[in-house]
Amino acid sequence: MAATLRTIKAEPLTREGFESFGDVIEAVASHQESMNSTRFERFQDLANVDVGATDGGRPALSIARCRIATRFPHDVTMLERHALGSQAFVPLSDFRFIVVVAPSGSLDSNSEIAAFISNGRQGVNYHKGTWHMPMVALEADQEFLIVDRAGAGVNCEEQILDEPLRVEI
Amino acid sequence: MAATLRTIKAEPLTREGFESFGDVIEAVASHQESMNSTRFERFQDLANVDVGATDGGRPALSIARCRIATRFPHDVTMLERHALGSQAFVPLSDFRFIVVVAPSGSLDSNSEIAAFISNGRQGVNYHKGTWHMPMVALEADQEFLIVDRAGAGVNCEEQILDEPLRVEI
Repeated sequence: MAATLRTIKAEPLTREGFESFGDVIEAVASHQESMNSTRFERFQDLANVDVGATDGGRPALSIARCRIATRFPHDVTMLERHALGSQAFVPLSDFRFIVVVAPSGSLDSNSEIAAFISNGRQGVNYHKGTWHMPMVALEADQEFLIVDRAGAGVNCEEQILDEPLRVEI
Repeated sequence: MAATLRTIKAEPLTREGFESFGDVIEAVASHQESMNSTRFERFQDLANVDVGATDGGRPALSIARCRIATRFPHDVTMLERHALGSQAFVPLSDFRFIVVVAPSGSLDSNSEIAAFISNGRQGVNYHKGTWHMPMVALEADQEFLIVDRAGAGVNCEEQILDEPLRVEI
């Protein structure tokens, strides 16, 4: 009989729950101010974007478009992290997505891996060094704006998990 | 009889037409690569984000939500520019918006002011110093992600036009 996979359930994404891994990018009252003679509300400075500017890094804007939808439960086999900079994903339309993260530092069978599901309007910014599942999307053609680091240096590290982790939503 | 206002018509936003003012942020084949084992297409490094890192600047992510729709024709009375950094606006859903820009340098009655209308999927990144109309939106509740400079220093300069400029779409 096959062993049962370790399984975790994605919890609602909140700033408090996610704060040790990164920022939740959302329009929250605590960051609110007006802009352009009150034509706009501006929710200011929502993420700690760290592109390692003193280390040859610069901020880059990219668009990622999903080609293949991912169904859940989904078995995560690998996490990655960016040692040189943060990485933000902001959905370019209203859709929910799943993030799976583990604290920076060594990744082993004792790492506390967590999963979150966004509310459709939220983005995330992984702090430098936070382990995370490579992005997947629930539907094809969904698009994210990515804000991360460009520049010289090896910024991506991948690690295969000792055993797959099943993530439910 | 009232004098007729100088009037310009917003032209379709293209990378070529906008290049002296900034970047058009859109998923174009020339910037395409795959990501995450081909689950995604990634359109890489679409804008020259300049936050004046050597001058105490850092990148900031903000959300702007329109409170008051602007109807066109619209009479532009003032342009602004950011001397210390670029500023990007990326729509967080599919909608068209209008930008009005003038070349960096002194702004006077000889300045060649141009207007563009986006195609619904495009964002813009104003280069450092490009004069631009403060953002307006065609409908209330439309939201943009802003990527610009945070940090010390006076980064915003406004100038009233000698006479209003009427912008048609």
